[in-house]
Amino acid sequence: MKYINLDHISSNPLLPEVKQAMIAAIHHDYHNPSSQHQAGEEAAAVLEKAREQVAGLINANSPKEIVFTSGGTESDNHAVKGVAMANADKGKHIVTTNIEHNAVIRSLRRLKSDGFTVTSLSVDDKGRVNPQDVAEAITKDTILISVMHSNNETGTIQPVEEIARIAREKKIIFHIDAVDSVGIVPFDVKAIGADLVSFASNTFYGPTGVGGLYVRRGVKIFPILDGGVQENNKRAGTENLLGIVGMGQAAEIAKRDIHTRYAYLKGLKDKFLRELPDVLDEILINTHPEHSLPHLVSASIKYVEGESVMLMLDDEGIGVSTRSACATGSLRASHVLLSIGLSHEDAQGTLVIAFGIDNTAEDVSRFLKSLKTVVTTLRDISPLYKKAAGKG
Amino acid sequence: MKYINLDHISSNPLLPEVKQAMIAAIHHDYHNPSSQHQAGEEAAAVLEKAREQVAGLINANSPKEIVFTSGGTESDNHAVKGVAMANADKGKHIVTTNIEHNAVIRSLRRLKSDGFTVTSLSVDDKGRVNPQDVAEAITKDTILISVMHSNNETGTIQPVEEIARIAREKKIIFHIDAVDSVGIVPFDVKAIGADLVSFASNTFYGPTGVGGLYVRRGVKIFPILDGGVQENNKRAGTENLLGIVGMGQAAEIAKRDIHTRYAYLKGLKDKFLRELPDVLDEILINTHPEHSLPHLVSASIKYVEGESVMLMLDDEGIGVSTRSACATGSLRASHVLLSIGLSHEDAQGTLVIAFGIDNTAEDVSRFLKSLKTVVTTLRDISPLYKKAAGKG
Repeated sequence: MKYINLDHISSNPLLPEVKQAMIAAIHHDYHNPSSQHQAGEEAAAVLEKAREQVAGLINANSPKEIVFTSGGTESDNHAVKGVAMANADKGKHIVTTNIEHNAVIRSLRRLKSDGFTVTSLSVDDKGRVNPQDVAEAITKDTILISVMHSNNETGTIQPVEEIARIAREKKIIFHIDAVDSVGIVPFDVKAIGADLVSFASNTFYGPTGVGGLYVRRGVKIFPILDGGVQENNKRAGTENLLGIVGMGQAAEIAKRDIHTRYAYLKGLKDKFLRELPDVLDEILINTHPEHSLPHLVSASIKYVEGESVMLMLDDEGIGVSTRSACATGSLRASHVLLSIGLSHEDAQGTLVIAFGIDNTAEDVSRFLKSLKTVVTTLRDISPLYKKAAGKG
Repeated sequence: MKYINLDHISSNPLLPEVKQAMIAAIHHDYHNPSSQHQAGEEAAAVLEKAREQVAGLINANSPKEIVFTSGGTESDNHAVKGVAMANADKGKHIVTTNIEHNAVIRSLRRLKSDGFTVTSLSVDDKGRVNPQDVAEAITKDTILISVMHSNNETGTIQPVEEIARIAREKKIIFHIDAVDSVGIVPFDVKAIGADLVSFASNTFYGPTGVGGLYVRRGVKIFPILDGGVQENNKRAGTENLLGIVGMGQAAEIAKRDIHTRYAYLKGLKDKFLRELPDVLDEILINTHPEHSLPHLVSASIKYVEGESVMLMLDDEGIGVSTRSACATGSLRASHVLLSIGLSHEDAQGTLVIAFGIDNTAEDVSRFLKSLKTVVTTLRDISPLYKKAAGKG
């Protein structure tokens, strides 16, 4: 029986065209793009082609606004720390939200020990921040606003256009962590009005360990990796050219397919949400019904442990996650789920289900069936469930 | 006619076994190693196998001492900044040399603006630092000594064992930038007594954009990429698993072949150095005759521009470099060459020739022939050469 990956927030399979492009690049075996002889120039051309492909996906004005990184985490670190270091003379205050990815939260924590202050805003029960709160948090010392586009645990999408308008008005740099959005939802850096955008190749079915940071021309930012003059002097280090080739190819396909991809994923999610009440009750859906990723559902299953559901589904050949893969190993309840107001109990009973283009409607049906079996089994032995049932 | 790469300091071709391992990994298409279901565990096993292969190459006590990075530059940044940040309470003084890679120099420059002071030691005319100078530079505030193993422009190898002894005696953390050494010369972190060692996969014929940092157990260091709990909480971000698989395979082969590889490369270099005086005179060899990389020669060709030699050799189908690929784009003369006492003129006339395991004795012969033609042509039109010849 095929293993069904419903954990596309942790990992997406490579597109066949991406595999092909990377294998061809491995066979060709390019030289160092910084070298000035023919072999170097050939490699540089490949690098710049990928940069154009990626710029195209997010509608950047120029490929020069794309900095290749080792992934979403580096992009977030670069944006937050790089802007803070480069603009500290103007002020040391940063505005963010309580539900950011740890790459942003922990970068900010690092900056706090360097004298920066951070205002972290709360979100509503579907995980949205109020743009008015952002406006009110701004002080004369604010140099950066960092708000994620979509949350990797709830899928909820933030009102980034409104925040961008506020940032522009106050002349404050606006960074969007769009690691889980770019390539899944149409994303136009110019239409949104972003200054910095973090994104990752694997989100759009390219390889892991490679990503990008969009840096709008004119934004003052320091490198976080110092050294050589690569990436227009913004990010030192010999490039991961194989990964970049794969990312470029994935970006080109994501741009071409974005609307059909979105519709297909949303179809799977809609089917799941539509049919779920028929198989199980007492499940909270934490994902915003309207402003959310097309493929992600955060579901808190009452009276059970998410961990147990995950492991039993795994035995049934279905992969889901209980939280961001980056946070596994931590025993604490998710800061995101607590921020949207879940109890510790409900947070521990939460599954993140993320569909992918490799899933089918049949996968959703099989998942619903397995989920029913697993949850019913667990609830049958749950003292909490028995108590609640007795009360009902 | 085949293009001859004599610029292996900028890029090494992938080993056939590395290509094969990476292509197999692309076809297999692993999930996220941090995910806790079967697919994640399978990916984690692949990651840990590569960690063992890499630990084996440098004889680390435990694979846990290996942190995978995006390459030598990140490893250097991580070591220097990570130690500085984590140990600033003990002191803010760092000892280094004038000929380090820009990844170290510029990381230190960044720290200087944060209140750190740096003592940068000069080297002799073959690029070696005197360990006694290191000992004398140490103050009660010294928290880190960072000295490279081999220089990427001269190939000269430093007396790191003696420096390690001094560091250990004074209880100061010792970082070795061994990016151009590991996989080319036998390298044993325990025998040397290093606390931190930076290295890069491409040096030993693995992919670019992936490297490692050896962190001896017990060394206090902060991450520079904050976020998730990957890499034992030392380096956040979803791993570049394809690159890591390639690096692991390359490490295993490097360990197996290190002595034959060394001998083969040294054979090519010896042939070149032996036959060079027969084809051209007035060439300074900047590489240490004994303490140097087996494959690298820095040669200052009097009365000509290195850039012109490089471009004309390129037309002949031979790739050499005039300096570190990371520094191309900069117009300044190499800080390394000036540090070993070269005049600006001689520095500008310098070629870095780096042989690889894909080169043959015939390549060396063809290179010598082309070099003679190119240099003779250039000298014939050089006013400096005519003047010198007239004087002679």
